[in-house]
Amino acid sequence: MIIVLKENPNKEQLEFFLAWLEDKGFQIHQSIGESHMILGLVGDTATLDIDLITALDIVDNVKRVQEPYKKANRKFHPEDTVIDLGCTKIGGGNLTIMAGPCSVESEEQIIAVAKAVKESGATILRGGAFKPRTSPYSFQGKGKEGIDLLLEAKRETGLPIVTEIMELSQLDLFDEIDVIQVGARNMQNFNLLKELGKTDKPIMIKRGMSATFEELLMSAEYVMSQGNEKVILCERGIRTFETFTRNTLDLSAIPVLKELSHLPVIIDPSHATGKARLVAPMALAAVAGGTDGLIIEVHNDPPRALCDGSQSLRPEAFDELMKKISPLHKLMSEMK
Amino acid sequence: MIIVLKENPNKEQLEFFLAWLEDKGFQIHQSIGESHMILGLVGDTATLDIDLITALDIVDNVKRVQEPYKKANRKFHPEDTVIDLGCTKIGGGNLTIMAGPCSVESEEQIIAVAKAVKESGATILRGGAFKPRTSPYSFQGKGKEGIDLLLEAKRETGLPIVTEIMELSQLDLFDEIDVIQVGARNMQNFNLLKELGKTDKPIMIKRGMSATFEELLMSAEYVMSQGNEKVILCERGIRTFETFTRNTLDLSAIPVLKELSHLPVIIDPSHATGKARLVAPMALAAVAGGTDGLIIEVHNDPPRALCDGSQSLRPEAFDELMKKISPLHKLMSEMK
Amino acid sequence: MIIVLKENPNKEQLEFFLAWLEDKGFQIHQSIGESHMILGLVGDTATLDIDLITALDIVDNVKRVQEPYKKANRKFHPEDTVIDLGCTKIGGGNLTIMAGPCSVESEEQIIAVAKAVKESGATILRGGAFKPRTSPYSFQGKGKEGIDLLLEAKRETGLPIVTEIMELSQLDLFDEIDVIQVGARNMQNFNLLKELGKTDKPIMIKRGMSATFEELLMSAEYVMSQGNEKVILCERGIRTFETFTRNTLDLSAIPVLKELSHLPVIIDPSHATGKARLVAPMALAAVAGGTDGLIIEVHNDPPRALCDGSQSLRPEAFDELMKKISPLHKLMSEMK
Amino acid sequence: MIIVLKENPNKEQLEFFLAWLEDKGFQIHQSIGESHMILGLVGDTATLDIDLITALDIVDNVKRVQEPYKKANRKFHPEDTVIDLGCTKIGGGNLTIMAGPCSVESEEQIIAVAKAVKESGATILRGGAFKPRTSPYSFQGKGKEGIDLLLEAKRETGLPIVTEIMELSQLDLFDEIDVIQVGARNMQNFNLLKELGKTDKPIMIKRGMSATFEELLMSAEYVMSQGNEKVILCERGIRTFETFTRNTLDLSAIPVLKELSHLPVIIDPSHATGKARLVAPMALAAVAGGTDGLIIEVHNDPPRALCDGSQSLRPEAFDELMKKISPLHKLMSEMK
Repeated sequence: MIIVLKENPNKEQLEFFLAWLEDKGFQIHQSIGESHMILGLVGDTATLDIDLITALDIVDNVKRVQEPYKKANRKFHPEDTVIDLGCTKIGGGNLTIMAGPCSVESEEQIIAVAKAVKESGATILRGGAFKPRTSPYSFQGKGKEGIDLLLEAKRETGLPIVTEIMELSQLDLFDEIDVIQVGARNMQNFNLLKELGKTDKPIMIKRGMSATFEELLMSAEYVMSQGNEKVILCERGIRTFETFTRNTLDLSAIPVLKELSHLPVIIDPSHATGKARLVAPMALAAVAGGTDGLIIEVHNDPPRALCDGSQSLRPEAFDELMKKISPLHKLMSEMK
Repeated sequence: MIIVLKENPNKEQLEFFLAWLEDKGFQIHQSIGESHMILGLVGDTATLDIDLITALDIVDNVKRVQEPYKKANRKFHPEDTVIDLGCTKIGGGNLTIMAGPCSVESEEQIIAVAKAVKESGATILRGGAFKPRTSPYSFQGKGKEGIDLLLEAKRETGLPIVTEIMELSQLDLFDEIDVIQVGARNMQNFNLLKELGKTDKPIMIKRGMSATFEELLMSAEYVMSQGNEKVILCERGIRTFETFTRNTLDLSAIPVLKELSHLPVIIDPSHATGKARLVAPMALAAVAGGTDGLIIEVHNDPPRALCDGSQSLRPEAFDELMKKISPLHKLMSEMK
Repeated sequence: MIIVLKENPNKEQLEFFLAWLEDKGFQIHQSIGESHMILGLVGDTATLDIDLITALDIVDNVKRVQEPYKKANRKFHPEDTVIDLGCTKIGGGNLTIMAGPCSVESEEQIIAVAKAVKESGATILRGGAFKPRTSPYSFQGKGKEGIDLLLEAKRETGLPIVTEIMELSQLDLFDEIDVIQVGARNMQNFNLLKELGKTDKPIMIKRGMSATFEELLMSAEYVMSQGNEKVILCERGIRTFETFTRNTLDLSAIPVLKELSHLPVIIDPSHATGKARLVAPMALAAVAGGTDGLIIEVHNDPPRALCDGSQSLRPEAFDELMKKISPLHKLMSEMK
Repeated sequence: MIIVLKENPNKEQLEFFLAWLEDKGFQIHQSIGESHMILGLVGDTATLDIDLITALDIVDNVKRVQEPYKKANRKFHPEDTVIDLGCTKIGGGNLTIMAGPCSVESEEQIIAVAKAVKESGATILRGGAFKPRTSPYSFQGKGKEGIDLLLEAKRETGLPIVTEIMELSQLDLFDEIDVIQVGARNMQNFNLLKELGKTDKPIMIKRGMSATFEELLMSAEYVMSQGNEKVILCERGIRTFETFTRNTLDLSAIPVLKELSHLPVIIDPSHATGKARLVAPMALAAVAGGTDGLIIEVHNDPPRALCDGSQSLRPEAFDELMKKISPLHKLMSEMK
């Protein structure tokens, strides 16, 4: 339920009202709309009498929120959420470019790629230390050593880091990681989401292979329900009958998620298409479609990459793409 | 099988070779590559000895073509196909904008919309005379009267017409129609495709709701196999588990189809998303992704539209979108 | 809208009421429920006053029918539809077994298979004369010659025939065909359905590769709306992400369609699975699930079949399967 | 790679060979085929010379195994795996019936349902203590208290227990649980699978909503790779475009998984269909299709169930179903 207050509500009446609501067991989520304060209620609002509340002096109007997600709902939080990492921001008009290799393989590799992508304009470095592999016999990532190498690349280039967590027990290794990624296969690992919601880290949740927009937002809600509101949504392709592409990139996720929610939306054209030569067109399409950012796999030697080489861009190709993204984003911003 | 000839092949040897191939029952599809002539063979090429052919003086190299589509295959025809309607061209760098109402409802409606979209820069007028309706009790379109009204709008505005054919018996009504559309539900109406292949009209084939890229190209192949090479491919969203959007718009169709085939690719963001407010972002994304064109539903009174009002743009919204598409397309062309 | 009349309604009042309804433009579909007459109305029933009608002496109760399909709706026709071909019946407790080759290849082949399947207990012979082929270069079926061969097999064995029509122009060849099949790819070829609705032939509609149950029933409605009520529904697998099977056989179609509709339901485990060794278990599962029948591909020499050999059963394997289906069906009937 | 040995291989030569293989870093999986010993090798077998190995006295033939799953592969283990819980067995011709409520709600509820289902012939009691809920605001299950109640029901009825684990930290609560269930949303929670593979408990893995057969088998492989070979596969419906049923039950999973693997296959018609009235026909279909068992939701008061009431059977309906399953299974066993 959304309660929109009138401008400049009487302080006393407001305090009394908030206390009355809390007493009834509701979580109250205060937010500033254009010029009005908005109270988002989470709880069993079916019991509240809309007419009674609308009649209050300080209340302008009341709307029941049908969607099961509340904190992630734009109705609760009309302004875009902007996540500030210090040296860069995600959301709210900024264009975030996360780039790096599928997995961290060696110090030489990660430093080289980090420098290259930074040079080309990337704002965040990605790299996998803990890899989700369909086969137990495949390379599972360098683990803690991978995290250390990422942090070294951060020290050398100043780039913040986004990397995937596979299991709660790994959490204490993520202290200096800037954005924690929850992979598509873990999008409904509810316990993991709840625990990450108790941290203060920005969490990027990848849409599950066959997750609906609503389910993605409910996963965001899991994190936010524990108090952590720094959530980023990432579309990485959904599973369909088409086999030429690895997945089907659903770019409608950009306008849809930005309508339903206030959280930033990132597009992953690498995992979505599975083919390096399709990454650039889809990245450009995403920028024109209004995305808050991209996450792109870049490897200095794709044929020899330990995983996903076929969808990785060489640094030169990434640089070429960035030289197009820049003027494109500028034009789209001007045309808004 | 593709046979790439050397530059300036000996005329006599070439004629002899072509005759030998035809004698063996092959269809030969001649095409000019960058500077070499390419012979595309259609038939049971398994029987041909590659080494024998490669050894010929006039032959540079030979490749077996794995894909079941040949005439639609870019290997057979490396240059983009450009379809010339006289006043406008489809493909090869041109940006085609097809716009108009879902169905033709009245003279007043179609003329008004035609004038409006032309004013905004549309290059082709769309409108349904024969409608595919899931229910036999729904409005099935004005039929012949609808065609007549479209032709009147053509006379008044000069806009060429694209409209859907539902059944072969309607074909003679399409004499003055510029582009004949085959709807998604008829993408594998093989008899219809074969007959349309015997005409000289440009045919726009909409991808079936759950058709693979290969199946779409095979439907193009059906038309082309009869001699009509003026085929346009149209992606209009595929059926997935997501219900917020009417279908899932698969923009990877642009780079994929333009890689596999030489035929122009059009995007339909209206039927794909099913929601007017999602049309503009997806249209812009498509342009940035390299589409050869768009087909957009525009209605002067969407709430009262006889079908698909919820996904139709008002003329003002369409005009606003076109004012963004123009500079965007210009920028993309410069950056190629 | 369903109007359930009281037992033994006054004749005069009933006639007056029916005339009043027809005058208002409704199609009235009379049906006998357990002991009550049911009037199914097709038309814009939103205008009718339910209370007014319920108040009539002869009326017991009135229900609005939400579903867009009416004539196909079990609410309109509570009893199972049974289609009588003379020598065998489809629906209503009977178990129909349609068997035969994917396509008719020669007199010798079709006669041999017809005799074999008849011997094993098949009740209808299937065979393709007009084949839907994804490639224009593949064998398209023997056409008229194929129909003639099927009719010859009918004369020799007494088995009625079911075969697919691809195009309206072929209709006059189907005079002696007992059941006309509409293929999955033509499930929404609305013009074809409407014309078949004007005939008196039983029509078997195959569910489209990604058609919902409702869409399948609307296609049945297209046929029935023209007056032909002898429609059979056929589930043949839907398209999903799984690639090990050709399609995913959706056996829930049996209880779902039999709940929503009164039309008989047939299962095609051959096209659904695409693998001969999966046909028997799925056929048995379908029988236990309550199917009205099966349609199974049988070929005397699968490796050399001109199409779909990999999913065809040899006559011996078909016979073995029938020897299990028989006692299974008997047990299921006893347990109802 | 599969190495099939000759009958009665020379003991010394065999020991030498095994040592040589282990020395090369391979995991060797010994299995008894019909009368021959089979060595299944896991490791980088590309380096092994097939001819060299085939030439050995003790070796009959060698086959490379293409599938990425080895231990789960029937080629490695031709005989059905039978999991013995003491009072009942899963697999190998036995029909396992797991029944119980979606979630454990109270002592009264779980004891009542346990007694009822036992009376009807269930062999294992199911009940959720830790529930995967899409919304963080929904009932998450009674947790430890739920486990205790399940164990009490076990003491009262003698029924073994199957219940879902959501998170590794819950593992020590599962000491007396007989079968640990991994939910569909956790099918690719690789860390969870690996840890469960280190236990000695039977693990039932539910197929993910859009997991391929191969991915399900790779999840089984994750568990087995750690040494735990007691894995049960469960098909519970896959996500498709159809919305009438909650998911689409893929019964072809039975013959497919039993062909590719030796692990028992269980069918869940409750979560698959989402509608109580569809459970019985699908359960019967599964039994006729050769399933090793069923897992069915039973609740004594479905309308008031805390979750999934709409798909739960009342004890009377469950009993009625069991009275049909029994003779059906008997008939199917006789007919094998």
